[in-house]
This record gives sequence, structure tokens and C-alpha cells, in this order.
Amino acid sequence: MDGFVAKRRYIVKYRNGQLAEEEDEIALEFPLTVVVNGQEFATIVCTPGHINELVIGFLASEGVIRVIDDIKAMTIDGERGFVYVELTSDELPAKQFYAKRFIGSCCGKSRQFYFYNDAKTAKTIVGGITVKADDCVCLMKTLHEQSIDFAATGGLHNAALATPDRIVVIRSDIGRHNALDKLYGYCLRHQVAMKDKLIVFSGRVSSEVLLKAAKMGISILLSKSAPTTLALDLAEELGITVVGFLRGQDFNVYTHEKRIIIE
Amino acid sequence: MDGFVAKRRYIVKYRNGQLAEEEDEIALEFPLTVVVNGQEFATIVCTPGHINELVIGFLASEGVIRVIDDIKAMTIDGERGFVYVELTSDELPAKQFYAKRFIGSCCGKSRQFYFYNDAKTAKTIVGGITVKADDCVCLMKTLHEQSIDFAATGGLHNAALATPDRIVVIRSDIGRHNALDKLYGYCLRHQVAMKDKLIVFSGRVSSEVLLKAAKMGISILLSKSAPTTLALDLAEELGITVVGFLRGQDFNVYTHEKRIIIE
Repeated sequence: MDGFVAKRRYIVKYRNGQLAEEEDEIALEFPLTVVVNGQEFATIVCTPGHINELVIGFLASEGVIRVIDDIKAMTIDGERGFVYVELTSDELPAKQFYAKRFIGSCCGKSRQFYFYNDAKTAKTIVGGITVKADDCVCLMKTLHEQSIDFAATGGLHNAALATPDRIVVIRSDIGRHNALDKLYGYCLRHQVAMKDKLIVFSGRVSSEVLLKAAKMGISILLSKSAPTTLALDLAEELGITVVGFLRGQDFNVYTHEKRIIIE
Repeated sequence: MDGFVAKRRYIVKYRNGQLAEEEDEIALEFPLTVVVNGQEFATIVCTPGHINELVIGFLASEGVIRVIDDIKAMTIDGERGFVYVELTSDELPAKQFYAKRFIGSCCGKSRQFYFYNDAKTAKTIVGGITVKADDCVCLMKTLHEQSIDFAATGGLHNAALATPDRIVVIRSDIGRHNALDKLYGYCLRHQVAMKDKLIVFSGRVSSEVLLKAAKMGISILLSKSAPTTLALDLAEELGITVVGFLRGQDFNVYTHEKRIIIE
């Protein structure tokens, strides 16, 4: 199932006042239900490429697993859209805390977290890496060029894991958070260090995206698009550098600008 | 709280090889927890404009309410990000079915639904309206022009309810589905008929977006962006006309093109 991100389909195009049938590429979307230790855990709507990495990254991001060895077995039923995960531990994930509102003002934790599992899994970045301003521009250009195959549909988000001067791996999905989970899953699966990497991203930086980066231990997030207020408040607190509107030679630095080096 | 969609913030801009501090507009995002009959139902991350319409539309979309009179009282605690809804019925919403995977192949319903509550609430459109190709172009142009205030942040999605020749109301949110829920809530609150309206939308048409339109009874969905395969499969089945990539004078018609009239 891996690798297919789009499907050809006959559609009707309106050009110069006329309708005409033509073939076009449409981004694939399908529902994938994740069953953990026999219990239905969640249904993700996603693009069917790199499903195993998506599921690993999703479970890590939700705090169900911490390392790849926490998974004993994984079986993907692509036809029906189910994935069955068996954990090393017999414990069922504590479902009552997922998507449960977290009110942190009374216990000294960040006020910005809104879900229990985020408060548990998101890390504050200490130290982190630096990146040259010129390299920010080059990394986004490379993401764009290398995503050209996927760009045909206009419906996919692209995310890359990179060192400060080179893209390591790119993942695509109709869901912004899924593209990041695929990177997270890639790193856990192949035991790739995340602390010395940055993320290059086509989508907007919402709180959800920022929290995914924090969970991975990423210190710099470069995006082509806009951030939200809550994402920036979280980034301030968690010590993450957010760069947005990275287009052509220009960009905005929203938080922790000390990691962006001008030469 | 209504009306604020962005916040000014000092950021650092990189232009012509130099960093300089400047003020900018950032799209507001905040977590809103919906409590129904005393039970925590869901936490929505949203833009804090038209919260009451958002909650009404969300609950209708989730199948918790059908008409506005199903809500006895609603109290918004904007400071803490909570909304307390009291239903006319004492029954608690059957939470076990929300986001529960629906496998429909055995009972004659659409194979495409993936959640129980969608299978229950999404309607197949019979009849519907028509719209002239020229009017599609004008409606998107108007949405764009009237959204100019919101466009400053680059982080908001805009959705409009329209008749075939005029925009009735526009709503904005950082979440695509929230913008649609606000329209749905607006219609229920003000008892505005939906069957004779269409939706004009800045965002991509995923299955979730398509299902929202189906729940409202909307027969035509015009989008500036791309659709996904699952959204189009659902649109075929549910009888909804999907127009995408509506930019300038051109657009694509993906499903049920008979409702687009060329003169």
C-alpha cells in the first residue's frame, strides 16, 4: 500500500467558458482504524503511504508508546483500513485521558496545554541546534522541488526531517499532523536521532503541529505558512524556534530567534 | 469574545539578509471544551469568533442536537475556554458512538462512511439547486474580497453560505471544519433554510468537509482548493456537486456536474 498518494480520475474542467472532460490526479484519503491490544483506539483519515510509520508516530505522539520496542507486532489490513497493534505491555492505553481537557493552572504545569497526554509527552527543549538564514531558504526550496511529484494533486502537505544543511526524509499526507507523525514514526523505526534535526513543513503551524514537534524533541520548525497565537505561546514556553512564511528569500521568525544565524 | 480573530504581536522579519523586529497579525487559536449536560463532550481548537454558532453547528454535526430547541441553555466561559450546554432532553449523548468506526458493508448503507454518527446524520441530497458557471466565479471573488480583513494573518479559512447569486454570511476559523460548523450553527440559530443554499469555501475538500455539507443538506460546494478521493466518493453517493480549484475564471467540476449551468 505504501507509496500511492494519488489516484487518476475523470473530471470536468471549466476553461474559457466551456466544460470538457479530462483526467486529473486526486490526493488519496482513506480511513484507518488503529486497534491497540484488541481495543479500538482511534480512526485516522490519512493518505495511504508509509502506514507503519504513521501508526508508530501517532502512538508515540499520543503517549501510548515511547520506543519502537514497545510494539510487539503490527498487522495492516489495507483492504478494510484497519491496523492491529500488539504492545509489549498487556496494559490497555488509558483512553480516558486522550483528548481529555487538561487544566494546568493549579499544578504548576504550563497553562497552554489543553490535553492530558500533551502535558505528559511534550518536552521543553533545552539547548537545541542553530541554522543559517541562507540554509532555511535552501531547505524550503529543496522541500518544494522534491515534493513536485506529490504537488500534482494540490491536496497534500509535505514535511521533511532535515539537518541544518540537508533534507533527510520527506513524508506527505492530506493531514498536516499525519505528515509529522510519519516523520516521527520514521525516526523511531530507524532509530534516527531527532534532537539534532529540524522540521521543514508546507503547512500552517497550529498548536497541534507545534506539540508534535515538541514531542519529537525538535528545536527548529520551518514553515511556508502562518502560525497561530496558541502555537506561538506554546513555542515560547517549550523553547522551540518557529519560522513561518518562508517564501523565496524571506521569512518571519516568531520565537527564539537566537537559533537563526545571520552571516 | 465574538469578532476577534487575530492578535498583534512583535515578530522578527528576515528581509534582504537582515533581521528586524516588526508588528504582525497572528490568527487566534484557543481550546474550547464543550460540556453537555454536565459531561465533558469534546475539546475543539478554534478561533474565538461566533462561539455560540460554532457550538450549535458542532453539536448538530455530531448528531447531538437536531434543531435549536434541543438546546435549553448555553453558557460560555470565554476566560477558561469552556462552554456549558444543557439539552432539553436529560439524556447524555451516547459518547461510545462518536468517532467509533462504522463498517457499513453488511447493512446496506454506504461503504464510504467511517464514523457511526456520520452514517446517522449525513443526508443524501435529492434535487438540489443549480448555479451558473459565471456566478461560481463571482461568488468566490466576493468571498475573497469580503475576507480581506481576515486574510492579514494568512492562517484562517473562510466559508460562506450563499444563494446561487449572492453571499449571505461569511465565517472564519483556523479550522476548516469549524468555519463550516459556524455556518451550520448560524442557520440553525436564525432558522435559515439550507437546502436552497450553496457553500463557498477557501479550504480543501476532505471527507470531513464533504460530510458537513451533507449534514446541512447542501447540494453544491464551491472550493478554491483541491478535493480528496474519499470526499469525491462520498459526494458521488450523497448527490453533492463538488467544484474545486475555483481560481480566476476557471474551475474543476468533480461530481454531479448537471447542477453547473453554462449559458
